[in-house]
Amino acid sequence: MNRSIYQINQSDLPVIGITMGDPAGIGPEVIVKALNDPLIRRAARYIIFGLDEQLGYAADAAEIGPFWGRLPHEKVSRDNPYRVVVADYDEFAVPALFGGASRIGGQLSIRFCQDAIDAAMGGMIDAVVTAPISKTSWRLAGAKWPGHTELFAERTRAKRKAMMFVSGPLKLALATVHEALFEIRHKFTIGRVFEPIDLLNEALKEYFGLERPRIGVAGLNPHAGEEGQFGDEEQRIIIPAITLASQQGIQCSGPYSADTLFLRAIKGQFDGVVAMYHDQGLIPVKLLDPLGAVNVTLGLPIIRTSPGHGTAFDIAGKNMADESSMKSAIKIAIHMVQCRRTAQKVGR
Amino acid sequence: MNRSIYQINQSDLPVIGITMGDPAGIGPEVIVKALNDPLIRRAARYIIFGLDEQLGYAADAAEIGPFWGRLPHEKVSRDNPYRVVVADYDEFAVPALFGGASRIGGQLSIRFCQDAIDAAMGGMIDAVVTAPISKTSWRLAGAKWPGHTELFAERTRAKRKAMMFVSGPLKLALATVHEALFEIRHKFTIGRVFEPIDLLNEALKEYFGLERPRIGVAGLNPHAGEEGQFGDEEQRIIIPAITLASQQGIQCSGPYSADTLFLRAIKGQFDGVVAMYHDQGLIPVKLLDPLGAVNVTLGLPIIRTSPGHGTAFDIAGKNMADESSMKSAIKIAIHMVQCRRTAQKVGR
Repeated sequence: MNRSIYQINQSDLPVIGITMGDPAGIGPEVIVKALNDPLIRRAARYIIFGLDEQLGYAADAAEIGPFWGRLPHEKVSRDNPYRVVVADYDEFAVPALFGGASRIGGQLSIRFCQDAIDAAMGGMIDAVVTAPISKTSWRLAGAKWPGHTELFAERTRAKRKAMMFVSGPLKLALATVHEALFEIRHKFTIGRVFEPIDLLNEALKEYFGLERPRIGVAGLNPHAGEEGQFGDEEQRIIIPAITLASQQGIQCSGPYSADTLFLRAIKGQFDGVVAMYHDQGLIPVKLLDPLGAVNVTLGLPIIRTSPGHGTAFDIAGKNMADESSMKSAIKIAIHMVQCRRTAQKVGR
Repeated sequence: MNRSIYQINQSDLPVIGITMGDPAGIGPEVIVKALNDPLIRRAARYIIFGLDEQLGYAADAAEIGPFWGRLPHEKVSRDNPYRVVVADYDEFAVPALFGGASRIGGQLSIRFCQDAIDAAMGGMIDAVVTAPISKTSWRLAGAKWPGHTELFAERTRAKRKAMMFVSGPLKLALATVHEALFEIRHKFTIGRVFEPIDLLNEALKEYFGLERPRIGVAGLNPHAGEEGQFGDEEQRIIIPAITLASQQGIQCSGPYSADTLFLRAIKGQFDGVVAMYHDQGLIPVKLLDPLGAVNVTLGLPIIRTSPGHGTAFDIAGKNMADESSMKSAIKIAIHMVQCRRTAQKVGR
């Protein structure tokens, strides 16, 4: 992110949709605190899909004066008169919600997402930033999606998806995510490794302004297998996936020993990194930027980012939440919108 | 490390043995450069097991005047007259060795280790710091040990061993090391997890001056399995190992999600961490202190540390090596000697 994101023509301002997430979590608080930053407010216009009243509680607790307008959600349009507007769902007569999973919390946070996705697909907003949901609330609401990513992929009819993280200077995509470590062996295919390489390459070009990104791919085994001494997945799966990607013109290399790859990336040797499994990627992501790491879903036809943290029910409603990650998620969404516009203008 | 290590009574100075490692690697260079630091030299006396001539080359290249004495290796004793002495093996008529694996490099580096181990077991030196060896040279020399650790364990008759790393504020032991990731499942037992907890606890007490160390144990799966949602190793293996350790009076807890555990440790919530496999531990170790990370072998009756890097044959003899990790390895060995002395004095 650089200052240039704040210096654009007012009429060209991106419109960023923000879903409140579970109203009982820290979503309302981090949204209010993030948008209270004048630099963030100047950089875009915002439509918050959520409960006006819940935002009001958070603003009161943080001693922030209200800076947003309110419209019933069905009345909100791209050219509404507010810099920040809440698309309010006040037809749900909801008691003040704090600090725990609930069926209504699940129903509401699903609805916010669905409407924000439709708004993004229809062009009303340019990107969706999602505050955290509770998987328990979603289960209580009978949801069939385990989390955000699956709902977004289904509703946007995305055929492929990958989880990306932006953490300080590190941009990283994962080949596998929420799976038991030893179960990955049964699903570890050339396609599973190729896909995040391909999607990360596309994203770095379209959304991060890199013409020909250099992608470093991690090995799976210690020292990337040390030429087959520890495990053969590098030979059987990772190297063929890298070869396939190279044949398609992607500038990627590896597999590299994971214990030095991330350091090489933040020193500038790579623009992006592909990690093979959750902890291999998330350990450096969280060490490099504990508060500000941002999750980006790759492969969707729309832009979606989210903060790296969860609902944090234990501190919800107590004005104790840190909004850094929400701010980063908003800034990165804006940056992605602008890069995409530039790419479209120059016909890339 | 703090300054107090430099303020001890001269006659009480620890005697640190340093093995040169493969003479064709960067061992001679990092030894000369590290011991050229006056603070390091003041903190202990040193016996280098190696080739005087090879040290001379390294000192010349670095424009360091000779600061050490030389004795034939069989004549060296604890009370030799030098602050730094080379226990020289000049009966091996060796040409200048640089930049590659060789049978003689293997034979020599094995011999240096064996003699240093015997010296430590016999009380001539208080600790062994090992410069890097080449596994290829060892194979060419017909060695049956894959590396340092196995040779040290066998020769000191250690029944148990674990690999520990010290990296900035992080102290970490590994449950498994150089094994194919997916093969670990067949060897992942309660004992494999309990042993590094127990050995790390003992080491933190005896060698790092902590009376009742707090040890955090990582999970194996993403989010430490999220209560059995991804994998059952936490329930079947890691929790029983933690329970067993707790029953023996060790203050340990977990399993914790690995992507936040290391951050919590460096913030001071834990004195030591146990990681389940190589990359889980080495990614944070190398990110937190890329140049200075030190390897410590736990479970031996003697103190052994080593720098985190390898022989680096590609830059050997070129005066390009960085001695930070060798310095850290020496400082930590001195610290461990002093803590053990204190523990023995107070009868812990």
